[in-house]
Amino acid sequence: MSRIITISREFGSGGRELGKRLADSLGVDYYDREIITAIAEQTGLGENYVEQILESHAWKKIPLNFRHSFANIDRLEPTQAGFLIEQKRVIEKIAKTGKDCVIVGRNADILLSDEKPFNMFVFAGMDARIRRCMDRAETGEHMSLEKMEQNILRIDKSRAEIREALSGSRWGEVGTYHLMINTTDWKIKELTPVVAEFVTRWFEKK
Amino acid sequence: MSRIITISREFGSGGRELGKRLADSLGVDYYDREIITAIAEQTGLGENYVEQILESHAWKKIPLNFRHSFANIDRLEPTQAGFLIEQKRVIEKIAKTGKDCVIVGRNADILLSDEKPFNMFVFAGMDARIRRCMDRAETGEHMSLEKMEQNILRIDKSRAEIREALSGSRWGEVGTYHLMINTTDWKIKELTPVVAEFVTRWFEKK
Repeated sequence: MSRIITISREFGSGGRELGKRLADSLGVDYYDREIITAIAEQTGLGENYVEQILESHAWKKIPLNFRHSFANIDRLEPTQAGFLIEQKRVIEKIAKTGKDCVIVGRNADILLSDEKPFNMFVFAGMDARIRRCMDRAETGEHMSLEKMEQNILRIDKSRAEIREALSGSRWGEVGTYHLMINTTDWKIKELTPVVAEFVTRWFEKK
Repeated sequence: MSRIITISREFGSGGRELGKRLADSLGVDYYDREIITAIAEQTGLGENYVEQILESHAWKKIPLNFRHSFANIDRLEPTQAGFLIEQKRVIEKIAKTGKDCVIVGRNADILLSDEKPFNMFVFAGMDARIRRCMDRAETGEHMSLEKMEQNILRIDKSRAEIREALSGSRWGEVGTYHLMINTTDWKIKELTPVVAEFVTRWFEKK
């Protein structure tokens, strides 16, 4: 069975950077934005539009048994339902390649639970998250600290709602993950080799 | 500043064994039962009695500002209040030795927050926890699986209540810990070196 590593993360925690560096370190494929791109190509729509629909609050309407049945899919707004199905298909297709990989976000841990992935949750203190967001903001992009914090909380809330709608389990809840890391005091570059070691040992035991 | 590692754990998760092995691996002191022993010696009472009082549900009455003021300590039943103060004193004394150590349980992460400890939370799936409890049960000690599960849930509930009363933060809640590990698939012996590496690197950055 291939080694699949999924990363759920708080916004601004550095989870995406950790995922990318981890994939590089382990020499495996990396999927994040690539999933959006695949859906956009498949539907002929713009990436930003696809992303916006997928992350909108209207996801709350998704039935709890989504993963297994899609039985109530017709209760959803058609575009959302379509993107949801397409996203599931893309992620399952990634798993079917049989190649080791890291997948960031998209609730891949739930969608691929039959594949026994290693599931991580990455979080950090608010100050550290604001700092990280400020550091990576593009030149000319000005946002006040207060606005940045509101933005972080809004995105977290949306991710949590999507998670709960899809799985019935709380986002960031102990028990659904194999390893949960607070990145507050870490440079992601320095954290990566330690996490790579942890993950490698975990898969060796399987 | 000394390196203090605190371990909070779900009952049956192997957190205590991990703490002991980690202390051995790092060559530092280990405190768990030793804290109860110190209180018993100080008060001239039996260890089992001290432990029972400290883990009883009556802890719920402890005021939220306990750590900073002890202002409402007279609202507590005198024995409990006395043990609570004594436990706090013992844990602070351990920190004051200035020696590196691992402390399991007792909400040491809250009591010693000024010392900037590395705080871990150790958890596991219920099946794994029951298996671990069964494995370590003494010969002749017979408990049904159902009874064992009830026992585990009862102890968890008590620990969670004590935690919340002392700190106002939820037990096992993301954000209050530096590292949270699911031991379900691990032999603690094999997990120890990976965790030791993680902790060592974290302290190196300070």
